[in-house]
Amino acid sequence: MLESLKEAVYRANMLLPEYRLVTLTWGNVSAIDRASGLIVIKPSGVSYNEMKPSDMAVVDLDGNAVDGTFRPSSDTATHIELYKAFPGIGGVAHTHSRFATVFAQAGLDVPALGTTHADTFYGAVPCAPALSDDEIAGDYERATGFQIIRCLLDRGVDPERVPAALCQYHGPFAWGADADAAVTNALILEEVCRMAWATLRLNPNAAIPQALLDKHFLRKHGKNAYYGQPEK
Amino acid sequence: MLESLKEAVYRANMLLPEYRLVTLTWGNVSAIDRASGLIVIKPSGVSYNEMKPSDMAVVDLDGNAVDGTFRPSSDTATHIELYKAFPGIGGVAHTHSRFATVFAQAGLDVPALGTTHADTFYGAVPCAPALSDDEIAGDYERATGFQIIRCLLDRGVDPERVPAALCQYHGPFAWGADADAAVTNALILEEVCRMAWATLRLNPNAAIPQALLDKHFLRKHGKNAYYGQPEK
Amino acid sequence: MLESLKEAVYRANMLLPEYRLVTLTWGNVSAIDRASGLIVIKPSGVSYNEMKPSDMAVVDLDGNAVDGTFRPSSDTATHIELYKAFPGIGGVAHTHSRFATVFAQAGLDVPALGTTHADTFYGAVPCAPALSDDEIAGDYERATGFQIIRCLLDRGVDPERVPAALCQYHGPFAWGADADAAVTNALILEEVCRMAWATLRLNPNAAIPQALLDKHFLRKHGKNAYYGQPEK
Amino acid sequence: MLESLKEAVYRANMLLPEYRLVTLTWGNVSAIDRASGLIVIKPSGVSYNEMKPSDMAVVDLDGNAVDGTFRPSSDTATHIELYKAFPGIGGVAHTHSRFATVFAQAGLDVPALGTTHADTFYGAVPCAPALSDDEIAGDYERATGFQIIRCLLDRGVDPERVPAALCQYHGPFAWGADADAAVTNALILEEVCRMAWATLRLNPNAAIPQALLDKHFLRKHGKNAYYGQPEK
Repeated sequence: MLESLKEAVYRANMLLPEYRLVTLTWGNVSAIDRASGLIVIKPSGVSYNEMKPSDMAVVDLDGNAVDGTFRPSSDTATHIELYKAFPGIGGVAHTHSRFATVFAQAGLDVPALGTTHADTFYGAVPCAPALSDDEIAGDYERATGFQIIRCLLDRGVDPERVPAALCQYHGPFAWGADADAAVTNALILEEVCRMAWATLRLNPNAAIPQALLDKHFLRKHGKNAYYGQPEK
Repeated sequence: MLESLKEAVYRANMLLPEYRLVTLTWGNVSAIDRASGLIVIKPSGVSYNEMKPSDMAVVDLDGNAVDGTFRPSSDTATHIELYKAFPGIGGVAHTHSRFATVFAQAGLDVPALGTTHADTFYGAVPCAPALSDDEIAGDYERATGFQIIRCLLDRGVDPERVPAALCQYHGPFAWGADADAAVTNALILEEVCRMAWATLRLNPNAAIPQALLDKHFLRKHGKNAYYGQPEK
Repeated sequence: MLESLKEAVYRANMLLPEYRLVTLTWGNVSAIDRASGLIVIKPSGVSYNEMKPSDMAVVDLDGNAVDGTFRPSSDTATHIELYKAFPGIGGVAHTHSRFATVFAQAGLDVPALGTTHADTFYGAVPCAPALSDDEIAGDYERATGFQIIRCLLDRGVDPERVPAALCQYHGPFAWGADADAAVTNALILEEVCRMAWATLRLNPNAAIPQALLDKHFLRKHGKNAYYGQPEK
Repeated sequence: MLESLKEAVYRANMLLPEYRLVTLTWGNVSAIDRASGLIVIKPSGVSYNEMKPSDMAVVDLDGNAVDGTFRPSSDTATHIELYKAFPGIGGVAHTHSRFATVFAQAGLDVPALGTTHADTFYGAVPCAPALSDDEIAGDYERATGFQIIRCLLDRGVDPERVPAALCQYHGPFAWGADADAAVTNALILEEVCRMAWATLRLNPNAAIPQALLDKHFLRKHGKNAYYGQPEK
């Protein structure tokens, strides 16, 4: 069932240790098959060294297990809510990568300080505030998804122009057109956070001008993009 | 004698350089066979490159050498006191991993700032205060064990819920159900310390809310855990 | 066409990931054939893993594509302006290496704090100030080249004695006698920035004395150099 | 000539990149044959990738080239002065390792903050102050050796108990019984500097108590040492 998507999701998950975005098993990547509404996701707590494509779990948009011998990631409900709220995305990656988690723990947005940020994120990467005690005690992972969605909505952030968010005290979620793009955005977010963290030590008032943010984002994204090779 | 435990302790010791938790020979892992009361531990000052399973030293709970051609780790007495005081543990790991040592040198607890911490440590990882000059001049390594035990007791910390501590001016000890679990906890402690260190530079007042600490620790530990795969 | 220069530029580009100066495809190296006035440069947005020497793009000093199946780097116009303004250089390297980018984002020169800096850079590496909104909206990449050139000119900096500059909010450009030398200078700049960043945390007033800056630069460069082996 | 010492010095030099203590060619290790008074040292500016044992240069204690096809390291005169002043040492290593250089650039001693430091260095690693302009303009490398020797003498530091020093604005020199021991001390110094740097950010007043400094240094060094395995 969904064998090629399982293979793609497996490979995207394996990029997490290769990119040094995870310690032990702290991360998970999923992708959605929009035609069937089924999500393929990493199994919970399985070591990257031992994982195989066929170990990927399949769930529907209500969270029911549809295929696979392992329990899906404990964060599955968060992924599901993001797929339901953001129809343009095809993959989601969650990590505890070090400096993205540092900004989340500090409860701070990742500010846009340079073109490295602007090439991928059209403005600050928002830090969604902590859940209430009731939300934590209730359906926690689902509420985590709502927390991200609400935060983007409140701030008027387009999830396709800022393909990541932090959850306060927790860590980053990133997304993209497919599982690979989600992992790439998680990698870029981590690098951008490392640079921002060190920049703020040198200059707490640093901030990219709006014109430069526009220029770099739009030379890579949208109809007037001219970075990379033309689509074939 | 205890060949399979020697093999397990050897492999756990070899994880220390693999996880980049040690420089040169600065670390040691042990495990206890509770049935016989015998402890298997790394030999002192032997290079990781040259060490073999059969080089592991065996001592009893009074510190007497029982088997092995090498002197046991100079920290053996500390391990012994932890095994005597914490009957639920089966492995101990000591390292000078960089950021855990930094918190120890600064004389500070590792505060619980996020879910990465809360997934393993149910509250701050305590920094046991320095020994007195008399304790240092006396049976130093044994006193180091007492220092950790006393610190946990004084603060009402359950060693199975906070499976690590720092010794001021020195570095971390971590423990767990077996040698492997002890090393895993040493690795997590180091990562958590790196994140905490950088978080405190951004926000000195950061702290995880109690409800989120409860949620993350308890979804992974205890009878209501739902992270990972069901026990077989 | 220019096959051996393509090979040299290819190899110099491949040093960027080897030296950990780039994430993903964020960097580009070029070299100029001064006899023909043709520039060989990395193609835009092509992965380092898949790139071949024959993929290198060739452009003339007006930016016209002369050879190659791929679009040249989106930063080509910046490289061209540097070759036109600095007749003594043969290679240019652009990266988003972490700490050089951090100084650029902070809008600060990289101060000369020690002999590691002085061995290669004869004084501070200047941070060229941000472009105006009009320059950004216009011929941005070309204006980036002018920004660097103007900055060096305004400060009386000799591009052969300070073979690098930062562009505010963006990142570093480095250059040298050929593509290899440009990449070496990009590597040294990154290391020097890491050291300067950490030094300023310990001592914000640190600065190398002029006599020592002279000594170290001049023992490696110019007619009285005595470092390394004699020219054959 | 001195083939086995050349081999040992070659291998010790090759540890510098393996331990990540050098960038490019920024480091050199030597050893002395006390019987003949001849010093074997890395050739100047030769790449670690291409270097062979037979490339090592041999000089006498007056700095005259005695054997070898390459110029000796430009820092040879510094090594020579250390061998002349410290009769108990057999090897010297010079690097620009990142955090040791950071302390040198900041003009600060490396304070003894914990047992990791105390296991090797019996007190602060001193930062020898900058040379005068005249010394820099004169026989610079020799004056660098004098600067270190004078600094240890002024402070009453025993070079066998504190086997390293920093030169202000420059970087570290470490030494030991042979070339290998010198490199090991250079590695430990770098790790100790990284920890000290980060510790001072958390607690500017951190300092190991004297009794603990004594305990850790003396359990590894001198006639009452009990760390490691007994001498055979």
